[in-house]
Amino acid sequence: MTELAPDALLAGMAGMIASGGLEVVDLTHPLDPDFPVIVLPPEFGQCARFRVEEISAYDHRGPAWKWRNFTCGEHTGTHFDAPVHWVTGRDQPNGTTDSIPPERFIGPVCVIDCSAEAAADPDFLLTEGHLRAWEADHGEIPADCWVLMRTDWSRRRGADYLNMHGDGPHSPGPDGGAISFLVHERGIRGFGTETIGTDAGQATHLDPPYPAHSILHGAGRYGLQCLRDLDRLPARGAILIAAPLNIRDGTGSPLRVLALVPRAGGAA
Amino acid sequence: MTELAPDALLAGMAGMIASGGLEVVDLTHPLDPDFPVIVLPPEFGQCARFRVEEISAYDHRGPAWKWRNFTCGEHTGTHFDAPVHWVTGRDQPNGTTDSIPPERFIGPVCVIDCSAEAAADPDFLLTEGHLRAWEADHGEIPADCWVLMRTDWSRRRGADYLNMHGDGPHSPGPDGGAISFLVHERGIRGFGTETIGTDAGQATHLDPPYPAHSILHGAGRYGLQCLRDLDRLPARGAILIAAPLNIRDGTGSPLRVLALVPRAGGAA
Repeated sequence: MTELAPDALLAGMAGMIASGGLEVVDLTHPLDPDFPVIVLPPEFGQCARFRVEEISAYDHRGPAWKWRNFTCGEHTGTHFDAPVHWVTGRDQPNGTTDSIPPERFIGPVCVIDCSAEAAADPDFLLTEGHLRAWEADHGEIPADCWVLMRTDWSRRRGADYLNMHGDGPHSPGPDGGAISFLVHERGIRGFGTETIGTDAGQATHLDPPYPAHSILHGAGRYGLQCLRDLDRLPARGAILIAAPLNIRDGTGSPLRVLALVPRAGGAA
Repeated sequence: MTELAPDALLAGMAGMIASGGLEVVDLTHPLDPDFPVIVLPPEFGQCARFRVEEISAYDHRGPAWKWRNFTCGEHTGTHFDAPVHWVTGRDQPNGTTDSIPPERFIGPVCVIDCSAEAAADPDFLLTEGHLRAWEADHGEIPADCWVLMRTDWSRRRGADYLNMHGDGPHSPGPDGGAISFLVHERGIRGFGTETIGTDAGQATHLDPPYPAHSILHGAGRYGLQCLRDLDRLPARGAILIAAPLNIRDGTGSPLRVLALVPRAGGAA
């Protein structure tokens, strides 16, 4: 593929980031008290919204420094799902945020553009057929890559984001066949979305229920949710950096998700 | 430096991580209630230790899922200091975690080995003289790189980590001359340590007090603290990935710090 030695490759990468030949794209929503969290039926425990408490702000509580404490959930904001988050993954080896090998946090990414379908139907379900059509255009999805489902859902604000109706939330996601294909036939590392979960809003009615959570984590794979701006990524060829906080026994965590993207036209 | 196009470089990088030619080294302590936080005189506000509260664990509170809420400080555990953390940086443009351009989160790193000096003297101060001696061996510290001070302090446990005595904490750090040299003569991006702060335990007595915080943030540069295992990095040639959480107006954040390190002998 390349004869470059590792040290020359790293030097080349640093140079390309500095020159603009490689763009670093931030796929992360700000952690902010206004950002929605998933809302479950009231009999279940609930994920905390992000909130801050000021410790000092260059004042009598700390004359030269400003800082805050904060509270949130492991699954608040743009966040990573580790295998133990779901009961199917509870016994997976390296299933927590502090036991996943760090090389799993950097890897290739494919982006499936479902923006037109999601605009036409908020309950759009990605199927194996859509994935095979993508492969006809872009080549086979490689083993051990991230697959992200672009829906442009990250542009929604306020109540339109959860899109809650009388019968629950309505948002796009994959069906069981799509996830089974990605995990068992393509061997992906993980699956990510712009919506509040890796599963569709109405995924409780799918077979199996919540197929993304159930199948991904049962096979030791990862999830990413509440990503933004997936329209800034190419269909393939970018590298995703998604390193959760090193929470002891963590089931997931808010994180900063970055992508390294070759800039059109190469080095500036 | 290299004629490789950006897309070929990214493909080469992914391949080298998969083959082991590039090692991904985790420089992050687990976020754990037992990990120490900085302790200030009691008249000041205090940084929260990390603590978790279970929401559900495959039980009546959530039959198929396990998750927790957590509380900590922006400066708890292995963490990033943004310029606005210090009063000298309060008016710096892009001085918060949510306004720093994302390309600043990936860059080259130099490691100054002070482990022998810190073992001999817990109040060891890194000076411009030490930095110039390092440069005589390894070449000039390049502009816009991270400089990390290796002390092997991350191997200390419990009370030995803060090393608090009657007159305050005792731990190594840079003096004002060293930081001024790095910022004003070498133009570094940031400075990081294995100790609880970028400054020495007794840095209140230096000129200026807390020179790392004061000078770095006053110039819009960043800090990293509570790093671990800096002995696993080469003196130069690695790439640091240090992306704080995207906290709105954040003064810093816990984060996962990774390094890309060429493996001795090249590709496996």
